[in-house]
Amino acid sequence: MEPVVTVRAIKEAGTRIEPYVHRTPVFTSSAIDRACRARVYFKAENMQKVGAFKARGAVNAVFSITSEELLKTDGTRKGVITHSSGNHAAALAYAASCRGITAHVVMPENAPPVKKAAVAGYGAKITYCPSTQKDREQTMAAIMEETGAIFIHPYNNRRVIAGQGTAAMEMLEQVSSIDTVIAPVGGGGLLSGTALCVAGFKSSAKVYGAEPLAADDARRSFQAGKIIPVENPQTIADGLKTSLGELTFPVIYEHVTDIITVSEKAIIEAMRLVWERMKLVIEPSAAVPLAVLLNERGQVDGENIGVIISGGNIDLARLPWQ
Amino acid sequence: MEPVVTVRAIKEAGTRIEPYVHRTPVFTSSAIDRACRARVYFKAENMQKVGAFKARGAVNAVFSITSEELLKTDGTRKGVITHSSGNHAAALAYAASCRGITAHVVMPENAPPVKKAAVAGYGAKITYCPSTQKDREQTMAAIMEETGAIFIHPYNNRRVIAGQGTAAMEMLEQVSSIDTVIAPVGGGGLLSGTALCVAGFKSSAKVYGAEPLAADDARRSFQAGKIIPVENPQTIADGLKTSLGELTFPVIYEHVTDIITVSEKAIIEAMRLVWERMKLVIEPSAAVPLAVLLNERGQVDGENIGVIISGGNIDLARLPWQ
Repeated sequence: MEPVVTVRAIKEAGTRIEPYVHRTPVFTSSAIDRACRARVYFKAENMQKVGAFKARGAVNAVFSITSEELLKTDGTRKGVITHSSGNHAAALAYAASCRGITAHVVMPENAPPVKKAAVAGYGAKITYCPSTQKDREQTMAAIMEETGAIFIHPYNNRRVIAGQGTAAMEMLEQVSSIDTVIAPVGGGGLLSGTALCVAGFKSSAKVYGAEPLAADDARRSFQAGKIIPVENPQTIADGLKTSLGELTFPVIYEHVTDIITVSEKAIIEAMRLVWERMKLVIEPSAAVPLAVLLNERGQVDGENIGVIISGGNIDLARLPWQ
Repeated sequence: MEPVVTVRAIKEAGTRIEPYVHRTPVFTSSAIDRACRARVYFKAENMQKVGAFKARGAVNAVFSITSEELLKTDGTRKGVITHSSGNHAAALAYAASCRGITAHVVMPENAPPVKKAAVAGYGAKITYCPSTQKDREQTMAAIMEETGAIFIHPYNNRRVIAGQGTAAMEMLEQVSSIDTVIAPVGGGGLLSGTALCVAGFKSSAKVYGAEPLAADDARRSFQAGKIIPVENPQTIADGLKTSLGELTFPVIYEHVTDIITVSEKAIIEAMRLVWERMKLVIEPSAAVPLAVLLNERGQVDGENIGVIISGGNIDLARLPWQ
């Protein structure tokens, strides 16, 4: 069976996105190594463009569209569109601005002001709508009908998955000794891209997913062998509320060793530890893998563990330990 | 006249401290470059051991003491001592632990709990005393008399100054195009070490000091041509409250182009910008150079500006914008 995304597609994504994204650094901390009883390498995608790994997938998707596909009958160019109030929206806006096309973002009207400002800051055309799924879909459809904009799903998109896989590809280049990789899992774009990358480039290494217990659809789906969506989960890890998709689930089911959940308290403690000891601003979702490592010493078996720090976008006026 | 610290002493310090300190990374931000209309390179000493450049000076001073100097008549080894509630105390504790000797720290009893905990965490023996200078000196003298501990001044010490100069030395190695360096100035250990380093290794480059307006003793001393101490200044940049010393002032007077002051508001804004855009946790003192760059565009004339991010130790439960 043809894989969802080939190793070659991840390599090509790396080449395609290279002019527009950072090769982010990898950090270590002796204090955190002692706490985890392992050597932990942190791939700092919080320092990525738009402050999250999402720039990789969005740029790959936007620059994979051919000039012909972009061309409208009136000679002007189509834009791209998505629904999100999070990092993918900002990433798509950034990617579209790099290509010189319009990004449309459909966002719930009750989204936090700081997120609205972030997406607007990258030049997207924002349309607000009521926060029900029906309203969102109708609003999306109306804009696509009117503008011809091309939909870029936040994770259920092969080019997005290939782009997200480049983070792990770089990390394996930067630290060849890594024998275990942990990534957070929400919709599964990062985890599936990571799993495919590791399977292709270093099949001896293991891949784990890290998930909030309060939004444990991925763990339950993994155990059941089929997608079990989660309804309106409440977790501080706001990037991990979505459920696995039709493309991401089978990849995760095949290539991931296990999915491990952690409490909200453990997420906040891990986040604070990174801020205090590594001096890195990371968002709650990005702290979930470290929370797993701290909680489950011995369960994640690796001597050289690579963690993908997924992002660093957080409202600095409202920190979870306050 | 023999300089306070020679270029050779800075080079030797680099070799001496290398096993115990990080070669910290240099970061850039396109958003901040646009805001400053220059290319700004940030030397991330917030990621240094103990979270501040102070590890460099303390390690150099502690490892410069000869075995003979350390030996007491009863065959045991002397410790080191300082008075500080800030980064130097933590740094000296760290340096002493690396050498396997005792660090004594005299600290005002009203120091913030988070600072007491930090210094205690590095294994120092803390003695609390009332917060007057007289009490502090008496307490120091009593401990030195009793234990033979060797005093390591936070900045008025040639080995400390040489150690602090290694941050700029590394930065010039990492980014050879730098034509201007800005460092914060409190007691002047970092700024004098930086100025001597730049004068020795790249004399075509300029060095500026950055200081809170609310604690502008260095600027006033620089203008007057003599040390004008400051009395109990109130600034959020808690690392920059001290006045210049007998060793640091003449170096700064000779080698620094200018000292530029900024408001408390500008410091907080610059600090928040680094947290938001660079995803780096930095302390208020470390934001002062960027505040200068943002405030005084055109005044600081450099195309490739190197900024020393002095530290990242801050109580995360009490942020200045809240």
